[in-house]
Amino acid sequence: MKDVEVVNIKSVELESPIMIEGLPGVGHVGKLVGEYLISELGAEKILEIYSPHFPPQIIVKADGDIQMVRNEIYAYRSDDIELLILVGDHQSNTNEGHYLLTEAFLDIAQSYNVKRIYTIGGYGIGQLVEKPRVIGAANRVELVDEMKSYGVEFSESEPGGGIIGVSGLMLGIGKRRGIDAVCLMGVTSGYLVDPRSAQSVLKILTKILGLKIDMGALEERGKEMETIVARLREMEQLQAEVEPEFAPEAPLDYIR
Amino acid sequence: MKDVEVVNIKSVELESPIMIEGLPGVGHVGKLVGEYLISELGAEKILEIYSPHFPPQIIVKADGDIQMVRNEIYAYRSDDIELLILVGDHQSNTNEGHYLLTEAFLDIAQSYNVKRIYTIGGYGIGQLVEKPRVIGAANRVELVDEMKSYGVEFSESEPGGGIIGVSGLMLGIGKRRGIDAVCLMGVTSGYLVDPRSAQSVLKILTKILGLKIDMGALEERGKEMETIVARLREMEQLQAEVEPEFAPEAPLDYIR
Amino acid sequence: MKDVEVVNIKSVELESPIMIEGLPGVGHVGKLVGEYLISELGAEKILEIYSPHFPPQIIVKADGDIQMVRNEIYAYRSDDIELLILVGDHQSNTNEGHYLLTEAFLDIAQSYNVKRIYTIGGYGIGQLVEKPRVIGAANRVELVDEMKSYGVEFSESEPGGGIIGVSGLMLGIGKRRGIDAVCLMGVTSGYLVDPRSAQSVLKILTKILGLKIDMGALEERGKEMETIVARLREMEQLQAEVEPEFAPEAPLDYIR
Amino acid sequence: MKDVEVVNIKSVELESPIMIEGLPGVGHVGKLVGEYLISELGAEKILEIYSPHFPPQIIVKADGDIQMVRNEIYAYRSDDIELLILVGDHQSNTNEGHYLLTEAFLDIAQSYNVKRIYTIGGYGIGQLVEKPRVIGAANRVELVDEMKSYGVEFSESEPGGGIIGVSGLMLGIGKRRGIDAVCLMGVTSGYLVDPRSAQSVLKILTKILGLKIDMGALEERGKEMETIVARLREMEQLQAEVEPEFAPEAPLDYIR
Repeated sequence: MKDVEVVNIKSVELESPIMIEGLPGVGHVGKLVGEYLISELGAEKILEIYSPHFPPQIIVKADGDIQMVRNEIYAYRSDDIELLILVGDHQSNTNEGHYLLTEAFLDIAQSYNVKRIYTIGGYGIGQLVEKPRVIGAANRVELVDEMKSYGVEFSESEPGGGIIGVSGLMLGIGKRRGIDAVCLMGVTSGYLVDPRSAQSVLKILTKILGLKIDMGALEERGKEMETIVARLREMEQLQAEVEPEFAPEAPLDYIR
Repeated sequence: MKDVEVVNIKSVELESPIMIEGLPGVGHVGKLVGEYLISELGAEKILEIYSPHFPPQIIVKADGDIQMVRNEIYAYRSDDIELLILVGDHQSNTNEGHYLLTEAFLDIAQSYNVKRIYTIGGYGIGQLVEKPRVIGAANRVELVDEMKSYGVEFSESEPGGGIIGVSGLMLGIGKRRGIDAVCLMGVTSGYLVDPRSAQSVLKILTKILGLKIDMGALEERGKEMETIVARLREMEQLQAEVEPEFAPEAPLDYIR
Repeated sequence: MKDVEVVNIKSVELESPIMIEGLPGVGHVGKLVGEYLISELGAEKILEIYSPHFPPQIIVKADGDIQMVRNEIYAYRSDDIELLILVGDHQSNTNEGHYLLTEAFLDIAQSYNVKRIYTIGGYGIGQLVEKPRVIGAANRVELVDEMKSYGVEFSESEPGGGIIGVSGLMLGIGKRRGIDAVCLMGVTSGYLVDPRSAQSVLKILTKILGLKIDMGALEERGKEMETIVARLREMEQLQAEVEPEFAPEAPLDYIR
Repeated sequence: MKDVEVVNIKSVELESPIMIEGLPGVGHVGKLVGEYLISELGAEKILEIYSPHFPPQIIVKADGDIQMVRNEIYAYRSDDIELLILVGDHQSNTNEGHYLLTEAFLDIAQSYNVKRIYTIGGYGIGQLVEKPRVIGAANRVELVDEMKSYGVEFSESEPGGGIIGVSGLMLGIGKRRGIDAVCLMGVTSGYLVDPRSAQSVLKILTKILGLKIDMGALEERGKEMETIVARLREMEQLQAEVEPEFAPEAPLDYIR
């Protein structure tokens, strides 16, 4: 049994596509962006990736049919742009699996002559987000200024603790292979599936790619969430009035 | 040391048996069904499956004798039907082990020319179950209607989160190998060993298989449990009167 | 790097020794018995066993010197008896490691022509033990009666949940290899290192082996512990008076 | 994909350097010492070590650029001394990885003809430390007296539980390979990054090595921390006045 198995679904000719990784993670920001792009662009599935490092689980679909936990790569081609979009239900469940799968994704990227990768994630700050922000990281310092010009924020302290999972390793192992890669992270509470945050990332990503995407459906989901957030905020406030939280003065960076 | 070792206990000639998986899981529904079938049909053990992915543990039997943690396959043959029944004390204790063992079980199934697999599990809903229900999943959409005709329920939202362990992977990997497989899940609280739920699954399974099974002993165990459930319900009610639970209005699907 | 590495410390000629396993576990009963036997008999170390499945840790000795986490086998030979005694600071830290190490221990046993193994463990009952008891399990049903004649207790419900770790697997895998093996478990609270329980096992084990061992030092440690237990009992009683524990009537076996 | 990959950054000729390991651990004492030495001495990076046993994560640097989780070896050479300094952001995330990486580090040490290794760690005592102390362990008993002469303390009861991770295994596996190795542990609370403790280790280490290092910057960080510690102490006292802690008289060594 192989650690990673790649199944060919459809052959496609591409010159040098851009790869976008939208696997699940904090706030499901990556997954929301990846799946929204696929649906709006009508991208076609070309590859399925299976691994015993995924959770030992199947997904039951709405019609009662099932599918293995797997990752998938979709292709989109227009006159202006070529894309490979990586999505899935789960990331690896084992430490080594994250490395093995990332290596496999980069093998695929290189076989399609990918020169640039965007990985999408969420950056959880542990509290409700007032103003949507997108923070970034890049595997070549020259990419930082390029990203700043699109409104991506880079700060010394964010993301503290680094970037976990495929969204991070694609940059790290990509760097060792000489492939440019940028991680775009929507700032999010970390408690909720966050379509608002996904939308803020998608706005910047489409600007970078020069793509036009209808944001209507995502906007809709974002509004639903804002109603919920408003309610949570009320509850928080109510609670804050009852029992004021303890605010330590000592810089928490020192506390491990 | 091999990842999976299959030990032949008894040779048996079968044309194309149906395989039933009844390993332990939520509510021990699968285990109850599998072991009840073996006992009522007088099925014979033909194979033992050992693996270092099982918990590093032995089972002590009532007479002081012991046995390794293992899975077992029993065979039953009548004029009307041939069955292979997979049971055991434990499932894999490692992520990869679930995949390796499922592959081994399917190798066995294919060596016996199995064309249809039923996996049995429990679906825990986190509260006591008023009315027994059996929900299903299948690895080919055509099987869904067939199952509905026997009273299996399919709904868009159940089982949320998919099906974990061998009961799920048999459908997933089975699909990739072209073997029809259905998972029958007895709805259960998830807190208790649930013979009532096992009985509801067994009723449907025997109807599907055209088998006649005496439900007496299982009925008995179900009644014992209902006495316990009644007591738990009283306790719940008592508690509910003292401290009314907080009921959030926000749809919980959004909360991760 | 090998999964298990056996280092020869001293060559010794033995005809057919009895093996005793005294690795750490519940109440450290096995470790206390194994190390006490080695010290009282003056057994000599003949083998060291190393593995990357042990915790990644070293032991610092009283003089500041260190040693790797490892298991060790000691040999003892008199006119009446030959023994191999397996001890160590830790058991495997991984699931597979338990299996790999047990296989290695049995390889060693077979290379010395071992025909009988006694594994020593503790059986934790979650409360202070009034009267010392030794319960047993055996890998051949004929051994049960033999053990009963020495005062080992066998009951249908003990040990519930089986026997975990090397003490269990030696019986399980030993059975598959045709080596007789018995597990002797001192009943213990599970909260404390329990020399009293170790003494009760040692009394039976020496009777079985026909060995004479001075119990003085173990007796001493047992008395120390009883002073502590007496104090704990007082504390328990005090607490029980303040907040009476909830006693459910429902049989707990049903609750998972 | 290899378990450990060593990438050569710069070739350097060394006769027989001393190796110092300063990976992260309790109180980040090792990391603080290792990185401070590199910075003050202007040591040069010669090797990078990558492994899928490290956490699947990248580190984002202040400028937005990233790097893989990795360990690094720096070299320093003067007329008086040659050093190899091992540092990194993380240790292994898997049990086996600790062993594999330590073997790799020792392979490197031997390839450079290293005869002596100092590993640096923290020893957490669970409460604020009044007087800085450095305790030691060595993989040859003759090294103990040598270390005592520099003010390293050796006591029978410290460190209880041994030394976990690379700092410990370098001594253990080093011993088996015949390389002298000493672990110097700064006593620390275990709750805080502890530059004071790092300074106390560095004072002894530089005395041992005959090195002159400006302690100014570390002193500074230590003072910052003392302000925080003073505040924590006040808070502790305040809390102690409100709810006096329960002090058990029973020796805790017995309680598992």
